Amino acid sequence: MNAIPSNNIRVGILGASGYTGSELIRLLAQHPQVTMSLLTGDRAAGKKLGAVFPHLAHLKLPTLIKVEDADWSGLDVVFCALPHGTTQEVIARLPRNLKVVDLSADFRLYDLETYATWYGHAHKAPELQKEAVYGLTEIERPAVKAARLVANPGCYPTSAQLPLIPLIEAKQIELDDIIIDAKSGMTGAGRAAKEEMLYSEVAEGIHAYGVAKHRHAPEIEQGLSKAAGRPILVNFTPHLMPMNRGILSTIYVRLANGAKAADLRATLEKRYADEPFVHVVAEGVSPATRHVRGSNRVLIGVFADRVPGRVILLCVEDNLVKGASGQAIQNMNLMTGLPETTGLMQEALFP
Amino acid sequence: MNAIPSNNIRVGILGASGYTGSELIRLLAQHPQVTMSLLTGDRAAGKKLGAVFPHLAHLKLPTLIKVEDADWSGLDVVFCALPHGTTQEVIARLPRNLKVVDLSADFRLYDLETYATWYGHAHKAPELQKEAVYGLTEIERPAVKAARLVANPGCYPTSAQLPLIPLIEAKQIELDDIIIDAKSGMTGAGRAAKEEMLYSEVAEGIHAYGVAKHRHAPEIEQGLSKAAGRPILVNFTPHLMPMNRGILSTIYVRLANGAKAADLRATLEKRYADEPFVHVVAEGVSPATRHVRGSNRVLIGVFADRVPGRVILLCVEDNLVKGASGQAIQNMNLMTGLPETTGLMQEALFP
Amino acid sequence: MNAIPSNNIRVGILGASGYTGSELIRLLAQHPQVTMSLLTGDRAAGKKLGAVFPHLAHLKLPTLIKVEDADWSGLDVVFCALPHGTTQEVIARLPRNLKVVDLSADFRLYDLETYATWYGHAHKAPELQKEAVYGLTEIERPAVKAARLVANPGCYPTSAQLPLIPLIEAKQIELDDIIIDAKSGMTGAGRAAKEEMLYSEVAEGIHAYGVAKHRHAPEIEQGLSKAAGRPILVNFTPHLMPMNRGILSTIYVRLANGAKAADLRATLEKRYADEPFVHVVAEGVSPATRHVRGSNRVLIGVFADRVPGRVILLCVEDNLVKGASGQAIQNMNLMTGLPETTGLMQEALFP
Amino acid sequence: MNAIPSNNIRVGILGASGYTGSELIRLLAQHPQVTMSLLTGDRAAGKKLGAVFPHLAHLKLPTLIKVEDADWSGLDVVFCALPHGTTQEVIARLPRNLKVVDLSADFRLYDLETYATWYGHAHKAPELQKEAVYGLTEIERPAVKAARLVANPGCYPTSAQLPLIPLIEAKQIELDDIIIDAKSGMTGAGRAAKEEMLYSEVAEGIHAYGVAKHRHAPEIEQGLSKAAGRPILVNFTPHLMPMNRGILSTIYVRLANGAKAADLRATLEKRYADEPFVHVVAEGVSPATRHVRGSNRVLIGVFADRVPGRVILLCVEDNLVKGASGQAIQNMNLMTGLPETTGLMQEALFP
Repeated sequence: MNAIPSNNIRVGILGASGYTGSELIRLLAQHPQVTMSLLTGDRAAGKKLGAVFPHLAHLKLPTLIKVEDADWSGLDVVFCALPHGTTQEVIARLPRNLKVVDLSADFRLYDLETYATWYGHAHKAPELQKEAVYGLTEIERPAVKAARLVANPGCYPTSAQLPLIPLIEAKQIELDDIIIDAKSGMTGAGRAAKEEMLYSEVAEGIHAYGVAKHRHAPEIEQGLSKAAGRPILVNFTPHLMPMNRGILSTIYVRLANGAKAADLRATLEKRYADEPFVHVVAEGVSPATRHVRGSNRVLIGVFADRVPGRVILLCVEDNLVKGASGQAIQNMNLMTGLPETTGLMQEALFP
Repeated sequence: MNAIPSNNIRVGILGASGYTGSELIRLLAQHPQVTMSLLTGDRAAGKKLGAVFPHLAHLKLPTLIKVEDADWSGLDVVFCALPHGTTQEVIARLPRNLKVVDLSADFRLYDLETYATWYGHAHKAPELQKEAVYGLTEIERPAVKAARLVANPGCYPTSAQLPLIPLIEAKQIELDDIIIDAKSGMTGAGRAAKEEMLYSEVAEGIHAYGVAKHRHAPEIEQGLSKAAGRPILVNFTPHLMPMNRGILSTIYVRLANGAKAADLRATLEKRYADEPFVHVVAEGVSPATRHVRGSNRVLIGVFADRVPGRVILLCVEDNLVKGASGQAIQNMNLMTGLPETTGLMQEALFP
Repeated sequence: MNAIPSNNIRVGILGASGYTGSELIRLLAQHPQVTMSLLTGDRAAGKKLGAVFPHLAHLKLPTLIKVEDADWSGLDVVFCALPHGTTQEVIARLPRNLKVVDLSADFRLYDLETYATWYGHAHKAPELQKEAVYGLTEIERPAVKAARLVANPGCYPTSAQLPLIPLIEAKQIELDDIIIDAKSGMTGAGRAAKEEMLYSEVAEGIHAYGVAKHRHAPEIEQGLSKAAGRPILVNFTPHLMPMNRGILSTIYVRLANGAKAADLRATLEKRYADEPFVHVVAEGVSPATRHVRGSNRVLIGVFADRVPGRVILLCVEDNLVKGASGQAIQNMNLMTGLPETTGLMQEALFP
Repeated sequence: MNAIPSNNIRVGILGASGYTGSELIRLLAQHPQVTMSLLTGDRAAGKKLGAVFPHLAHLKLPTLIKVEDADWSGLDVVFCALPHGTTQEVIARLPRNLKVVDLSADFRLYDLETYATWYGHAHKAPELQKEAVYGLTEIERPAVKAARLVANPGCYPTSAQLPLIPLIEAKQIELDDIIIDAKSGMTGAGRAAKEEMLYSEVAEGIHAYGVAKHRHAPEIEQGLSKAAGRPILVNFTPHLMPMNRGILSTIYVRLANGAKAADLRATLEKRYADEPFVHVVAEGVSPATRHVRGSNRVLIGVFADRVPGRVILLCVEDNLVKGASGQAIQNMNLMTGLPETTGLMQEALFP
């Protein structure tokens, strides 16, 4: 595993006491080129990592400190896994020689007005925003390679855009009739102690939330609009359900320009043929979240509907891996010139 | 509870060793007017009920027998909770004086050709089919009251039709743009021992199944088409997820004839204002399956989408209660002249 | 269900926004002799019950108020479902004509020093403590009938004492070799928002907690010591696991005075033969928590071990029903002269 | 990950369509020295692995075949993950040059009479049994290194013996007062389609099974007796609960020879100080199964009880990894002269 001892990339993880933070550590512990040199966690400052994440207690890692106590010298890359809205000022103060992958939503929206509308306050680092590259790796690979600051995509947007963007670019689907019904596991909601996230409030049930107002809608629309060359609105309805990890996006589209379901399948198969992490499953197969649990893979299914002209796309990912920390490492690999899959080839954990 | 000892309706339950059978028994044990006089279970014949359902072991009930050994004399009502496709011949042989509520799919489709197409064989009791009344109680109450044979609706069709039919009748939605994304608990798949239903295959995951070919699609379309006065096709995509009970149908519709989301809400509120079991929740509230667990209630939510002209309907039920055995008893109450809610007012079990 | 309109007992529920509060409401809504006239919930004061428990939104109940705003006149019975340690002063201020069932731990320990040791502060209502009757119904029935203030037992102590007390009284087990390994669902830990109770921290795992220091140990020991006529210490190790409801106590005992496993079984069968809620299951049957979910029943199994002289007792209950609110209502029925089972005969919800 | 291409150990996996088979494949896919050259699966013969385990579909692996069609030439090691009782004859027919790790129970019991008593038939390969080494790695490392045939331990016995054997060897606990209360996830019960393993029969519940007659009892006793130098009987009570992976053994012991809880802790800490996979957690920490999910690690906790002379040991493992396939690979590493941890350093997947 860690057979190659040339640990030559020194990384810091800001916000190591949350789920995306611990997932970065889980994966980077297997990465042969990385040393984790800095971990921050504001409420947990002064504690060892094992106190907040017992499953990582055996790793030899630095004690958690506050962000303001960080020594940035000697670092090569910083992962920001801080809460939305708190990251802009932190990143703005970082030395310019550091490469940064931000897992929050703070730099994902190119348009500052859209940001202000959805996040309720003016952007606090508008100059940096211009520099940020949206890190949906398979779509933005060249830009990611050249980036200093990558805005790592949201979990829902990753699962929605990967199947849709190639179809929009191929002009095979109607732009104004896209419905994304997404089902997410609970880690997507973070680790903050809230009543509605207690086991007893979640187990044995499902409900939609953020209906018609979830902040991932404009992020999805930004990517799809870029692919289409004109603004697109989508219906996006997320649901929370009793599982730890995983997102299934069931996407309803309408065929355009004479395309058939088989054409959509062909477009996606071609687009992702050489991708190590994105796979189109065989015809008739319905991808399941449990089959990507813990892995960086994305599975996409394509079904013709009984309703003429309609197609159903199914896309699954692990929200903490390809939907967050795995994709962040995939981006880091590209930004630092490493093979893209380094440290990311773990198989899914099933059952 | 059983304070009123006037047990004057004698019922038989065919298929008492499955989940809809045990749910009938659970509910009827609280019904003040019912005596359970006959229980069948072919593989479990000769056993006491407690051997197949330990939670009901304390009830004083007859031993399970085979259907062919049943003595029908003295019975008033028979519930058929037998597997799909096996029920037609059984019911055809029953004495004509018995009232019958069939929980299988065998008599739900009025059109014999549609039945043959979806179920793979010619209907075996076409004469009886003419007599069968589709028992979606709130929609077909007068017919149910007069019926001898009620075809109890499927679990998905109940949750899809209750919100849609009033809107179709009010001509407030487009008929050719209806998408039903349904999420179901595992009891909806029955109690047969299949690998894909094992705990370890189901927990911590979600997947779609029967995509574009689930047998509940024509059942839903039959009800909506009747309301519309012309044939309707719908997209219906069911999903299986790790919970025991519950269905959430997230339904995407397009507004018609100048209607707004508030008009749809008003239509549903008016239609169900006096219903004991169907409630439209307040604006902004997202109904959750856990809030109807074990109860006969249905909750409906209405949300305007960000996409102009689109509305999202959310409908939850317990698939074993309003989606099966509860509605069956509701229908029996009507067929026998009892108050409709008798034995059905238990509250949901949350958490 | 509510067919008998003679609602002649007026009850108040203090702490209606927690799980034992909502469970009282769920059950009392089916109780033919009860009117819920007062609901308090300090943080939720001013809200309707449906805002904190949507599954009960349809009930016609008073708005939640603060305890200090309560009007006690006209009430007959008060259920206290307040946090431990806060109840003594509240109950001390109640009018003496009210009957009280306290679901907290505040009046369960007869010995004031033991209370102070385990709860970290002196008892605040020592005079009232003298009056309190420990409400383990099947054991203390006569005292409960005569009581004004009942201290409702804890969830773990109920499942531990019901199988052990008859065996101790029969002198069939060693007093100094009792090990209670208990597994509990998450509602036992309450509804407070704590990180360790989040879905993602609980699902797919199990762990022991409060090892050798859980506050239910002295409560169990009090009951067993009373039965034995001398002090007893027990090993009590509780575990938290991913289920909403249920406790399984696996109890390891050593035979005494020549008794055999069959003798223990006979003692328990005889003791509980006429009890409506406590059942000894058949030889070889292993009781499961799922078979008492939502019901007030307790199931007890008895197994001879391979190790000579050792017996394994298995006891299951629903921690929110027989372990809390159901037993509270059972006690109220006795205190008010009603049949003990009134409102409590609902079957378990399985699956 | 697979950076080192020197795949010089060619392995076959018999029974690749079960959970221990798929877990071997998941882990071996990360092993830098292994090529999987042969996969068998009798019912799935002729299928690609992805048809039975979609999460492994992307791996380039041979098609599943029947055992009788296997070509053993060119193989170095065979893992047998076949059902109990079917393995003896298969292994007896294997070429003698193959090293074998058997994950079934077929060669675990040294005493042929004990085997016959517990498994209901005479052993079918008694000569081979003499050669088999019990592969509890940390205890039997030298013998494993020299073995041709390793009987890989059962999941429960691994979690019971690792904490107990050092304490027995140190004569710090009473030999005749050992109680093992074990809680297991559902993969421990295998992938066969049985009613009692359906999601709806398992979720939201817990129960004991195999009380006083589980086949892992004699396996545990064999190991403890060897450590003690005389026969030992234990109480072993396993429970099934709703999680996919994980075993927690809560073990109740009585101190001997003046030892204290701190002495037991010291013994275990010393014994496992240099072990890569077995860790004694800090005082006061209660190990949780979720913290070893997917990893080969074992965590052991030690607590003094309130009952004088009693100690509680807590031991967690992932039943599919250290309890089966992970330990099997650990043993293979030793048998083939590789570093013991090769391919096994993946972190736990939490949440």
